[in-house]
Amino acid sequence: MSTQFIQANADYVANFGDKGSLALPPAKKLIVVTCMDARLDPAAHLGIKEGDAHVIRNAGGSAKDALRSIIISQRLLGTREIAVFHHTGCGMLTFSSNDLRSIVKEANPGNATVASQVDSIDFLEFGHLEDSVKADVGFLHESPLVLKETHVTGWVYEVETGKIRQIV
Amino acid sequence: MSTQFIQANADYVANFGDKGSLALPPAKKLIVVTCMDARLDPAAHLGIKEGDAHVIRNAGGSAKDALRSIIISQRLLGTREIAVFHHTGCGMLTFSSNDLRSIVKEANPGNATVASQVDSIDFLEFGHLEDSVKADVGFLHESPLVLKETHVTGWVYEVETGKIRQIV
Repeated sequence: MSTQFIQANADYVANFGDKGSLALPPAKKLIVVTCMDARLDPAAHLGIKEGDAHVIRNAGGSAKDALRSIIISQRLLGTREIAVFHHTGCGMLTFSSNDLRSIVKEANPGNATVASQVDSIDFLEFGHLEDSVKADVGFLHESPLVLKETHVTGWVYEVETGKIRQIV
Repeated sequence: MSTQFIQANADYVANFGDKGSLALPPAKKLIVVTCMDARLDPAAHLGIKEGDAHVIRNAGGSAKDALRSIIISQRLLGTREIAVFHHTGCGMLTFSSNDLRSIVKEANPGNATVASQVDSIDFLEFGHLEDSVKADVGFLHESPLVLKETHVTGWVYEVETGKIRQIV
């Protein structure tokens, strides 16, 4: 991919404008947490411009997995709003942590290091989309490491249509 | 932000085209790991289109923090290449985990739960940009949970110019 990155990047640099003067703290004091899914382009489907918001992405759009980043964002860079997005057709609805641990262990038979490391990981899968959004919003409200005054919203993105809908 | 999201999303939906038929597995079998920094729009500066790649973002673009997501991506969704991007002007160069733990504890005086929870978090800051990229690439090569055949590259994104440069 290196050649493709460099070609695409040359176009971006040619139209960079005055973005080099953007400040480090997000202008909208906003964090977006969403999934790593390849079909999602959150900047495009939410209208987020460079400088606006911290964007945290991981498998599922897990708020729990994002906690380290959220603490840094809030305490050092002044964000005060968090929008959590999960999406239809998410891979996290399709497996269990035990399934995935078995796949990894079967690919490394007899490897005790692999078994021990993978058994220690909670893959944070979920069984119901809307409930998973509510649970993540609840986690952020309840965590004593998240600022109490944080405005938290929860959303679903529809990969079939590109539409967003607010759940919480 | 809800109103702004909904307005911007309406434009995206109006131009959604045939993206509703994109497959779940990333077409380029690629994972991009990069920072949550507000000044970064990886889809734009790397030319990543919807459907191409998993994009994992966290504070610093930490490969270690991304491991859960990387395992899911490789074992369940077939990715075989990882590109790690860190960037100039990163907040992770400006503090220590102990500094941040003190900030959180001082905001919650006498709260043993907060102290215990925040003391358990490694905030994964780094002291040197290029070295942090090399260290993350090394982590991915050495982790027994990452597939051996993975092609791993390491890059720096320059917030001052929009340019990327390959380190590893």
